Amino acid sequence: MALRDVDDALRAEDFAGELAHASAAHVRGLIRKGEITGQTGGMALGKMQGNLAILPSDLAMDFARYCQRNPKPCPLVGVSETGDPMLPTLGVDIDIRSDVSSYNIYRDGELVNSVTDISGLWRDDLTTFVLGCSFSFEEALLADGVPLRHLEEGYLIPMYRSNIATTPAGPFAGPIVVSMRPMPMAEAIRAVEVTSRFPMMHGTPVHIGDPSVIGIADLMKPAWGDLPVIKPGDVPVFWACGVTPQAAVRAAKPPLCITHTPGSMLITDLPCGRPI
Amino acid sequence: MALRDVDDALRAEDFAGELAHASAAHVRGLIRKGEITGQTGGMALGKMQGNLAILPSDLAMDFARYCQRNPKPCPLVGVSETGDPMLPTLGVDIDIRSDVSSYNIYRDGELVNSVTDISGLWRDDLTTFVLGCSFSFEEALLADGVPLRHLEEGYLIPMYRSNIATTPAGPFAGPIVVSMRPMPMAEAIRAVEVTSRFPMMHGTPVHIGDPSVIGIADLMKPAWGDLPVIKPGDVPVFWACGVTPQAAVRAAKPPLCITHTPGSMLITDLPCGRPI
Repeated sequence: MALRDVDDALRAEDFAGELAHASAAHVRGLIRKGEITGQTGGMALGKMQGNLAILPSDLAMDFARYCQRNPKPCPLVGVSETGDPMLPTLGVDIDIRSDVSSYNIYRDGELVNSVTDISGLWRDDLTTFVLGCSFSFEEALLADGVPLRHLEEGYLIPMYRSNIATTPAGPFAGPIVVSMRPMPMAEAIRAVEVTSRFPMMHGTPVHIGDPSVIGIADLMKPAWGDLPVIKPGDVPVFWACGVTPQAAVRAAKPPLCITHTPGSMLITDLPCGRPI
Repeated sequence: MALRDVDDALRAEDFAGELAHASAAHVRGLIRKGEITGQTGGMALGKMQGNLAILPSDLAMDFARYCQRNPKPCPLVGVSETGDPMLPTLGVDIDIRSDVSSYNIYRDGELVNSVTDISGLWRDDLTTFVLGCSFSFEEALLADGVPLRHLEEGYLIPMYRSNIATTPAGPFAGPIVVSMRPMPMAEAIRAVEVTSRFPMMHGTPVHIGDPSVIGIADLMKPAWGDLPVIKPGDVPVFWACGVTPQAAVRAAKPPLCITHTPGSMLITDLPCGRPI
């Protein structure tokens, strides 16, 4: 992590401190007013935060199929009506045009802009997909006493492209991207038990142990995130990661796709401990 | 159950006897050749059997949303490409036009015909949805020693309209239809534990105990199935049922909808004990 990022993260954490016990609606209200434009980690603790993908309707059914076929990397927690910016199944008065703190705009698969409001880009043919993320199961692992080295040591979790292919749907395809958390094997077994209760937040690991089995040559060369700290006796534990659908969407090069900016999640009203 | 139905069921069971340990592909082959045209219960034991809904493409995205929003009654285990009769994510060489033993054809919500092959009805705009059913979790409950009165006493499981609304999507809406299995409370608690592992087969119960809480006035007046046998000390345990989406689809009155005939399921190659 660069020094400036650490600094940003620390300031974000301080800010979350005040908002950790705020309601999801309160935090979304601040986001809508433009008073929060950065990361949402630690805010409205206990509420499910989700990844975002907004796509034109001619790709919506294919993306719904992609999520159905790949539930570990793409756990679908909410889908809007076509053209409707509201998400009533995920919370009260959620307007997806303004209630995420930062959006990435992709055209033909290329990132062209990051903005804090997409009202001007909204169209009648857009459908919003919200996918579960790993925040909630990390809370459950911590509550269970499973050690999480990236939190102990203060690094961004490393992510890798595996050689496990997702099941394609229409233009969406590609490898499962995995995040890696090192821990002793006894804790890894317990982590399987704990995360089996969270199929909507990537669920159980996809692999434990030898990284080469899933096509990862060097744990010290992550595709995203920081270098891991692996303690003596630790084995690597790999979970499917929300970067998987983001990479699949970018590779499909849709004319328009809007996602959250990494770390700036949608905060829903749903309890994050609810398995489905 | 009428005498004739009992007789049919007994003959079906005898026939399944030979096919209980056959492969799913072998049973589908017999179905494709027209040698099996009735119920599939007990055949290819250990393989997931699924409910079927085939819909025109202009309703497909709404039905995908309906399933996403109502995972207990509508656990989506497979979706075809638009216009493609094959289901490669559910098994080898599954042709949905011929590989289900009996189909119901609905036009504008009305049952107009039951047929053993739909090749002549296939169109480029049709999408196949396969939903999990309760066969697998009943096997898991039996293996765990949970008593299932409808199997002990030989009656069809009773089903009721609850007052719990599904979350609508487009034209699809309506109450959750529940099936009811009576058992002692200690077994009901164990049944929650066991079925929590099967979110793709209706998962945990929606209610235990007083039927009036979910809008059921009289357990002896089921909307479908037989009268239950409730033993002393039993409490009623209610699970979301696959009749829910069937009723929602019929109420939506699509110009065309093709389902399986009740009891004549699609036999997939997937292991039925696999949670997702």
